[in-house]
Amino acid sequence: MNEPVTVLGLGPMGHAIASAYVAAGHPTTTWNRTATRPTPAGATRLPDATAAVSASGTVVVCLLDYDAARSVLTPLAGTLRGRVVVNVTSGSPDAARSMAAWTSDHEIPYADGAIMTPATTIGTTAATILHSGHPTTALAPLGGTHTYLGADPGRAAAFDVALLDIFWTSVTGVAHAFAMARSENITATELAPLANGIADLLPVVIDDHSARLAKGDHAGTFSNLHSAAAGMAHIIETAEARGIDAGVMRAAHALVRAAVDAGHGTDGVSRLTVELEAARHVS
Amino acid sequence: MNEPVTVLGLGPMGHAIASAYVAAGHPTTTWNRTATRPTPAGATRLPDATAAVSASGTVVVCLLDYDAARSVLTPLAGTLRGRVVVNVTSGSPDAARSMAAWTSDHEIPYADGAIMTPATTIGTTAATILHSGHPTTALAPLGGTHTYLGADPGRAAAFDVALLDIFWTSVTGVAHAFAMARSENITATELAPLANGIADLLPVVIDDHSARLAKGDHAGTFSNLHSAAAGMAHIIETAEARGIDAGVMRAAHALVRAAVDAGHGTDGVSRLTVELEAARHVS
Repeated sequence: MNEPVTVLGLGPMGHAIASAYVAAGHPTTTWNRTATRPTPAGATRLPDATAAVSASGTVVVCLLDYDAARSVLTPLAGTLRGRVVVNVTSGSPDAARSMAAWTSDHEIPYADGAIMTPATTIGTTAATILHSGHPTTALAPLGGTHTYLGADPGRAAAFDVALLDIFWTSVTGVAHAFAMARSENITATELAPLANGIADLLPVVIDDHSARLAKGDHAGTFSNLHSAAAGMAHIIETAEARGIDAGVMRAAHALVRAAVDAGHGTDGVSRLTVELEAARHVS
Repeated sequence: MNEPVTVLGLGPMGHAIASAYVAAGHPTTTWNRTATRPTPAGATRLPDATAAVSASGTVVVCLLDYDAARSVLTPLAGTLRGRVVVNVTSGSPDAARSMAAWTSDHEIPYADGAIMTPATTIGTTAATILHSGHPTTALAPLGGTHTYLGADPGRAAAFDVALLDIFWTSVTGVAHAFAMARSENITATELAPLANGIADLLPVVIDDHSARLAKGDHAGTFSNLHSAAAGMAHIIETAEARGIDAGVMRAAHALVRAAVDAGHGTDGVSRLTVELEAARHVS
């Protein structure tokens, strides 16, 4: 018999997680603050959070944010004592560490997780899940790739935030590029195959970036910050000539120009990482 | 015997282009405004632009920007008459169209090209080259994939700018993510494999984005703008808690929040393209 699991929160991700535990044969108890969310098939739904938590030795928390998680968990402190809390709520590393400090005060073993893939991947091999803090196998039934990142409870969230930084910045660039193209009577269908060619360059950029940071050598090979600044200026000019907001590219251009002004024009883009880091000490 | 080609401009890209013509057996004449740049092996170097242009029926222009191209070409108008100018200088669609209008006034057939890959790819199958305006086969010796985009001389530059928008926005996100990770004691080498997992999602995003724009259906599937706004807020909070500039993400977050405030929180990111377009009429 598999161990009972309780899932707090039945948004799309919580629902998918509870369904995956049911599918893996775990007695699954669920709770949601409001009754409006559907109950996953095969799971027990309890209206009282204390009763829901009492049903299992492992409690998976999947709420809107850490404020919601804190407000739900605070009155449960006594009940949670000795049960493993696995919190996959999205948030910052500091929020995860703060939550871990609270659980530690209440003798609650605490794992902080980050689910890197959409709810539709949960229970499939496509799911990518990180966790840190208390080592646990409780996330195994959610399928896919699991990576334990060590005892620091903020580490999974730190990876999560850095990876989401790449994702959301890139996606914003994609959305903007389609608007630019369509303003020039290039259809989305015409742009997509060439856009995919650009996306294919990104792993090369990432590996080069990583290697240069590891070596501390930022000489430009593929391109340099001078040409980046020139290309960015053309993008801003073209967007604004069509009345399209170029705020994201203006902010990116400011970073590149600052690096060029600091004498790094012939360096590659890994120099931007170093300059962002150097500016930390100034601000 | 292959046709003679003249290359104006011997920066890294012009040098690579001239070398590819030499390698393909074209008598190749080169010119550069200053003597400091090296001459490609096997090419003729002339100090006088008029003499260089007179040597060939096809003149490839690869200069710093359109201002430089205009200042070099203006005094050559009479000599260029009837010769094909292929301008691969990077710039905006409007700059390309303005240059095309000038060449038209002087009876100079004009192709405007965009080279999407680094100078190191020129002459190899990895080169990706777009052109529009006057149809020409003059770019064939540069290797790789050639796409003719039609008679509008600004169309190659329009694709170029939209594609560079994706590239430089994403690359800035990568540079920022590595700074975020390192501020959390995650090394570049640790982040890179997971970052590549994120990069692998981008073609899926691009194809979904394109399909939704083609259909005019922006319902969120993988994720929605509510969760994007929450994720972006965590990134900004984490960056700024470490003293790392978050200007790019702040600008992206502003776009997403505006779309959420307009009632599109449950839509996917393709809604951002539509909102950027809608804002054109307001501004």
